[in-house]
Amino acid sequence: MPGPLIYWDDLEVGRVFDLGSVAFDEESIVAFAREFDPQPFHVDRAAAEASMFGTIIASGWHTCSAVMRLTVDRYLNPEVSLGSPGMDEVRWPRPVRAGDTIAATLRCVDKRPSATRPFMGLVWNEWEARNGDGDVVLTMRGMGLFRRRPAV
Amino acid sequence: MPGPLIYWDDLEVGRVFDLGSVAFDEESIVAFAREFDPQPFHVDRAAAEASMFGTIIASGWHTCSAVMRLTVDRYLNPEVSLGSPGMDEVRWPRPVRAGDTIAATLRCVDKRPSATRPFMGLVWNEWEARNGDGDVVLTMRGMGLFRRRPAV
Repeated sequence: MPGPLIYWDDLEVGRVFDLGSVAFDEESIVAFAREFDPQPFHVDRAAAEASMFGTIIASGWHTCSAVMRLTVDRYLNPEVSLGSPGMDEVRWPRPVRAGDTIAATLRCVDKRPSATRPFMGLVWNEWEARNGDGDVVLTMRGMGLFRRRPAV
Repeated sequence: MPGPLIYWDDLEVGRVFDLGSVAFDEESIVAFAREFDPQPFHVDRAAAEASMFGTIIASGWHTCSAVMRLTVDRYLNPEVSLGSPGMDEVRWPRPVRAGDTIAATLRCVDKRPSATRPFMGLVWNEWEARNGDGDVVLTMRGMGLFRRRPAV
């Protein structure tokens, strides 16, 4: 299920999008980390219990990737989204633990037309994700390339 | 295979670590993207060919995660690494395509002791990854928490 069809021209700076939520269980946390981030506190229950985290926690890259999936499902539209040059200020202020469900929002904070490619514009967005206790587990700011509204 | 045992105290600012390389094939690109970033240019060959990229390209989150794996294997040591508060200036200047092998390096650019926790220190690192043609496909700057050398 794609995001709404909103061309660059029609995207309102300040608009907030509810991205829904995603659940983390130990199996998915460990599976991701075994492949991409096999540090003991991500993959080994005993080591995690002895660590300063006390339980297995999700790789920060897993958290980002899971929120990306919410972003694709609820915000990005395949007719409009043309990729991203990058992200800034990615922060993981609290760990994501097995059993956590995190809910994310995205706010469009700025936009400008592309200087070189008239069919697209640049968009800046800010993400925030919270666990069930309301603790912020992820914030980040990122760029997106959006297609401009076709001439009628 | 973990990274070398280098406590925060002994890590030299300016030191460069070779993180080795990782290969991307279409199967792994599509598998990651189906789960976390199912945009057409990541998962659908025909749509990707019609896009401005011309071929399927890896999700930027996949590139970051694959470079994280190299970082765990070649730089982070499980006795020393205590997690990360976040990343800055993540940039994907060129796409990663099926068949690409990307080679990464990491440079320690700054460090300071923790103000609140005497057993750890903060480290800033800069990553760079290039494809086989020498094009930069990822740069990022990130923080790490490292354990300090135990008193003898």
